[in-house]
Amino acid sequence: MNEFELIATLAKSLPANETVVVGAGDDCAVLDFALPDKLFLFKTDAVVQGIHFTSETPPEKIGRKALARCLSDIAAMAGTPAVALVTLGLPANFDPGFVRKIYDGLNALALKYNVAIAGGETTTNPGGLLLSIALLGTVARDKQVLRRGAKPGDAIFVTGELGGSLSGKHLDFEPRLAEAQWLAENFSIHAMIDLSDGLAGDLPHLLAAGGVGAELLKSAIPVSRAAKLPAQKSSSTKPPFAAALTDGEDFELLFTLPARDAVKLLDTWKKKFPKLKLSCIGKIVTGHGIILRDKTGSQKLNAHGYVHFS
Amino acid sequence: MNEFELIATLAKSLPANETVVVGAGDDCAVLDFALPDKLFLFKTDAVVQGIHFTSETPPEKIGRKALARCLSDIAAMAGTPAVALVTLGLPANFDPGFVRKIYDGLNALALKYNVAIAGGETTTNPGGLLLSIALLGTVARDKQVLRRGAKPGDAIFVTGELGGSLSGKHLDFEPRLAEAQWLAENFSIHAMIDLSDGLAGDLPHLLAAGGVGAELLKSAIPVSRAAKLPAQKSSSTKPPFAAALTDGEDFELLFTLPARDAVKLLDTWKKKFPKLKLSCIGKIVTGHGIILRDKTGSQKLNAHGYVHFS
Repeated sequence: MNEFELIATLAKSLPANETVVVGAGDDCAVLDFALPDKLFLFKTDAVVQGIHFTSETPPEKIGRKALARCLSDIAAMAGTPAVALVTLGLPANFDPGFVRKIYDGLNALALKYNVAIAGGETTTNPGGLLLSIALLGTVARDKQVLRRGAKPGDAIFVTGELGGSLSGKHLDFEPRLAEAQWLAENFSIHAMIDLSDGLAGDLPHLLAAGGVGAELLKSAIPVSRAAKLPAQKSSSTKPPFAAALTDGEDFELLFTLPARDAVKLLDTWKKKFPKLKLSCIGKIVTGHGIILRDKTGSQKLNAHGYVHFS
Repeated sequence: MNEFELIATLAKSLPANETVVVGAGDDCAVLDFALPDKLFLFKTDAVVQGIHFTSETPPEKIGRKALARCLSDIAAMAGTPAVALVTLGLPANFDPGFVRKIYDGLNALALKYNVAIAGGETTTNPGGLLLSIALLGTVARDKQVLRRGAKPGDAIFVTGELGGSLSGKHLDFEPRLAEAQWLAENFSIHAMIDLSDGLAGDLPHLLAAGGVGAELLKSAIPVSRAAKLPAQKSSSTKPPFAAALTDGEDFELLFTLPARDAVKLLDTWKKKFPKLKLSCIGKIVTGHGIILRDKTGSQKLNAHGYVHFS
């Protein structure tokens, strides 16, 4: 049994109660505490030394990244973050100055988005630094956008450009909170997810949640400059388009809405967010799986993010 | 700079916002999301292999303990737990069956207290198992009981018996949720904390928060059978009374209320909770620090839990 199978098994038997609107399996849990106009969003996310950052990563960026990842999940549901708790697991011989700088990065991002840090705890973690954020946010009642809800005929959009995040963006990305809130207020967004495992890794989650498939237009997928650079330096690295599909930690928004609204969205987006690219990359279809189309024909994309060149 | 000094420094500069009623430094954060009748309680707590449990600990008890610790913090504020998220850090070669059993223990306790497990995440933690719980609860508005609030003349009470938790109770303790809620509904509880670091470790937190001191009556402090047993077996172990003062993980409630209510409390408690001991162990005084009185005189107890026999 691998990690994904284990999670799927565990998720089936979790206790629920009357407050849980959406439990395990979406970007955040959605909770109803009988506030007339709001639902709550609840999320935890951890970064671990050697996996999400290295011993070379500046501590301010570790703190920033840990919170930004959670903010991105709140964005994926069109929510507003409110209050976080910080769990810091420290190896035995930690440097207090290093920890202070982790908090400097974390606090600066929290202030930017009016997120309170209301405590948390430090504990010993013998294997290395672990920083886990628990984040509570809100969303206007019935304005939450889930992973499920994509319908055949929907247009599929993605913000920004994809791939190459490890060259720097993974430590500096801006969570798309304002963009997501604007989308939910002004359009009928059917489904949304933030891209943490790459387009080829996360689109399947959105499709599976909705019981639908997708057709993507290869030329429409925005490939970042950071995804193109390594291939220019060495032919042995991942080709740019594969990087755009499979590199993790883009933290862009992937969402669908009725195709009839696509042109209006592109027009108004350009005025509202002139600095951030928005791309229509394909459409939702009946069935399941992802078909990738280009001039030469079509290919199937599998859930692990690799293109089968058939 | 040690861990406590670091935390104190960090806590001073955490971002706040309009939702935070009580931030870092109490058993839970207290949050106001404009629900007319309720405030929210928010808590995270982690257990780590080699610190809070060993490789010999049955996995069901690891899961149970992780959640029970958080429930005890909700109890310390007289709150009601509602929804938890689970962060599970796993070493590379984890056993899915072991993880399944962790959740069995956790889920059973969650069901008992009507706590929903609304998701969370698994991540790799190279140094060993880490299980962190983020818990959201509620408390009737203006019924939350904080660490601060103890007043000179208050009687000091403790539930249960103290010491020797490591011989088993630390894995099986019952969070005092019903007791704390009943106390807050029926009495004017001035201050409360749950005992995780021992009476001598946690009473100073309550005293410092209130700017007061305490006088304890040595003979009134309830010493558990588990604290007495090791000393019967070997004279080299911690004496029972020292164990009752300094052993951690009792997870009993320590609280103060006006002395005039002490007798009424003891009377009604016996009828309401006949199986759980309640002891009046001393009184709050002006000044600071803890004086321990017995037939032979008085001693000073320091914040690290050691008695100075002067």
